[in-house]
Formats: sequence, structure tokens, C-alpha cells
Amino acid sequence: MASTIKERVEQAGLTLPTPPVPGGNYSPLTIRGGIGYVAIQFPIKDGVFYYQGKLGNELSTNDGYLAMQICALNVLAIINEHVAYDKLEGINHIYAYYRSAKDWDDAPLVVNGASDLFNKVLQDKGVHSRSLLGIKSLPKSFGVGLTATFTILK
Amino acid sequence: MASTIKERVEQAGLTLPTPPVPGGNYSPLTIRGGIGYVAIQFPIKDGVFYYQGKLGNELSTNDGYLAMQICALNVLAIINEHVAYDKLEGINHIYAYYRSAKDWDDAPLVVNGASDLFNKVLQDKGVHSRSLLGIKSLPKSFGVGLTATFTILK
Amino acid sequence: MASTIKERVEQAGLTLPTPPVPGGNYSPLTIRGGIGYVAIQFPIKDGVFYYQGKLGNELSTNDGYLAMQICALNVLAIINEHVAYDKLEGINHIYAYYRSAKDWDDAPLVVNGASDLFNKVLQDKGVHSRSLLGIKSLPKSFGVGLTATFTILK
Repeated sequence: MASTIKERVEQAGLTLPTPPVPGGNYSPLTIRGGIGYVAIQFPIKDGVFYYQGKLGNELSTNDGYLAMQICALNVLAIINEHVAYDKLEGINHIYAYYRSAKDWDDAPLVVNGASDLFNKVLQDKGVHSRSLLGIKSLPKSFGVGLTATFTILK
Repeated sequence: MASTIKERVEQAGLTLPTPPVPGGNYSPLTIRGGIGYVAIQFPIKDGVFYYQGKLGNELSTNDGYLAMQICALNVLAIINEHVAYDKLEGINHIYAYYRSAKDWDDAPLVVNGASDLFNKVLQDKGVHSRSLLGIKSLPKSFGVGLTATFTILK
Repeated sequence: MASTIKERVEQAGLTLPTPPVPGGNYSPLTIRGGIGYVAIQFPIKDGVFYYQGKLGNELSTNDGYLAMQICALNVLAIINEHVAYDKLEGINHIYAYYRSAKDWDDAPLVVNGASDLFNKVLQDKGVHSRSLLGIKSLPKSFGVGLTATFTILK
């Protein structure tokens, strides 16, 4: 039975990326009082930027789904560095951000790119609530961004 | 003395709506480590969408107040399904989102629609801090959205 | 050795402002279950509004850095009213919001205004993860806003 998050990602047929390096004077993850707080993640894989643009313009809804999946894999890559799967109580809440063209309205489908991944890889521990917010700007014109909090078993 | 959130809402002269169904692969509420995380709520009542548009355009400040009140009632409807009033330590923080016309600047008055409700219905347990953010897009062109976290008594 | 946050701010050569008065029916800070939630702060000092406008238009990147520093000092002023430095486990996560012109892309540098301050004043207890979000509107046309959560030692 898989005891690391990395192994569980691989069992789902996916690969955990290298955790992105923070773009400022902060930590990718803090764990205090048994709760973990992951810094905002973007669709970056091995240092390469993907899915820059707006949903409904340069990016399709399916692009957005895949972009959210990369963000979620980055979240898991960061958690994996510090927490074993057995020690994870579960994901609490995800905050999903997107940039979109005026008439595009498929945000829930895009954010499922992250939600589906957490549910598939972490099963019951992946059950989460979520917010989704259409914002004006993200660094490097990324189309989406994602943060998450999680709880450690006591 | 009222021991459910539903009863307290009714004592305040209001009615708890049916908790909205999630619009994606997530849970309306997670409770982990004694903290509850409510998914983003919109001004939806019995499946009907209200208050679509921008504050300062289609929606007045008073519309926004009432829209936030519906969001807050949805938050309470979801908490009510899982937590008795006696078990609630209190609301932690609310995250209020709004869409507005360029020159409209009454966000604090609108967000009071949620704050007043939590304070009135839950008394000391309703005391909360808050963020308010003017964002570009919300699903279905809703004018406002709301999430909240809360703490369970140990 | 400094035992208040105020003393630590002064040791860093800075001055703690008067905590801003809430602009609505909410609390500037809630502490529940050992976690503190600070309401959104803006670049307000002694009741005067600073740094209104958009980054890349009226505000330079350096303006934004200084604006974020004021927000972070307001966060510390509020925490200082309720929590001794010795009782603080640390800052969990900061949520930084900014308004910017279309082609401006220096958000990480601006948000370092808050991150640098927390790290300098609180040392290990200041280590945090963060989100940064380019949003459309903030009250009073402020260029930036900031919220934070923190943990109390048990």
C-alpha cells in the first residue's frame, strides 16, 4: 500500500513534478498547529511556463482543466516533500483563481482539473471544499492559479 | 434555548434555504482538525439564481446587501447540516467577493449583509474578521460570492 | 530580549501604527482554536489613506513595496494588541491583493514588501507561505490589500 504521496500519484498514472522554487521571500509551505498552507501554484513544470493567456481567448476550457491539474500536481509535490500520505488527514479547501474572457463561463469545469486530481490520488483524504474566483491578473499572464490548505493527523 | 442553527435563524425572523448542490467535484463543507471550510456560496435560493450583474450597474448597493445575506444564509444552511449550534465555537473569517462598476465604492456596506446576519443570528459565535475583494468574474455573472471558515468546540 | 511585537518592530527601526478601525460590522481579529485571522488591511497610517491607484499607472513598483509594508505593519499592530511575541507560533499564510495596469508584472516584488517585513521582524516566526492576486477593485481605490492568518503556541 502506497505510503507516500508520490507513490499514489504514480499509481494514478501521473508524475509528480519538481516542486517549483518560490518567486519571492516566502516559503512554499508552512505547517503550524497541524495545518499546512501551500503557497500559490501556477502551471509550471520543470521550470517551463504553460497555459499563459485568458480562458475563452488563448486558452480553451480543456486547456484550463489541464492547467489546473498541473497546479494541483505542484501542490502535491510540495506536500510530498514534508508529509507522508499516512500522516495526512486531508485537503481542507482549495482556492482556485482564473483569468477569462468576458463571455466565458466554464470555471467550475476548469477547477475540476484540480478537484478530480485530489479526489483520485488521495481518495477520502482528497475530499475538499473550494472557492473559484475570476481575477484580473496573475504573474506571467498565467491563466490559472491554485492554493490549498490541509490538515495533519495528530 | 435554541440548539440548532436553523432555530436561531428562525428566531431572527429568517428562513434557512435548502443547501445548494455543489457545481463540481467538491464538497460543500469539509471539517478537519476542528475547523470547518465552507465552499463558495452565491445568491441562490431554492435553485433560482438572484442578483446577477455588477454592483453600480444592474445591482444597487441595497441589492448587494440582500445578495450577501442570501450567501450567508446558504453558508449557515450548510453548517446547519453538520454542526449543532452548541458545538460551534464561532465563525473565523469570511471572504467576500463582489463584481462592480468602475466608480462604485460601497463594498463595505454590501458585505455587511453577511456580517450583520452572522452577528445577529450567532451572537458572540458570529463575530468574525473579513476580507472583501472586487474581482472580475464569478460563475453565472453573480454579483457577489462568499466563503467562510469556522471552528468547532473541542 | 523583546517580548512584544511592538518592541521587535522598533528594534527593526520601524514604528507600529495605530491599528485601523474596521470599516464595517466585523472584528479586526478573531482567534479561535489557537488560530488568528486578521481582517484585510490597506495602506492606511494614522487614518490617512496612502497609495491609491494602480501599480504601473499612478503607483510604481517601489510604491507598491512600501504600500505592502504599511499593510503588514497594520497586521502586526492588530496582532500586537492581543498576542505577545512569546505566545506567537508564527505567521501561517498571507493573502496579498493588488490592482495593476495591463502590462505591469512585478507583483512578487511588491508582495515582498510584506514578506520581508514579517521575516525581518518576527524571524523564524515570520516564515509564511503566500498567495498574490491581481484583482479589479479594492475599497477607496487602494493599490494593495493584505490579510494574514497566524498560530498561537499552545
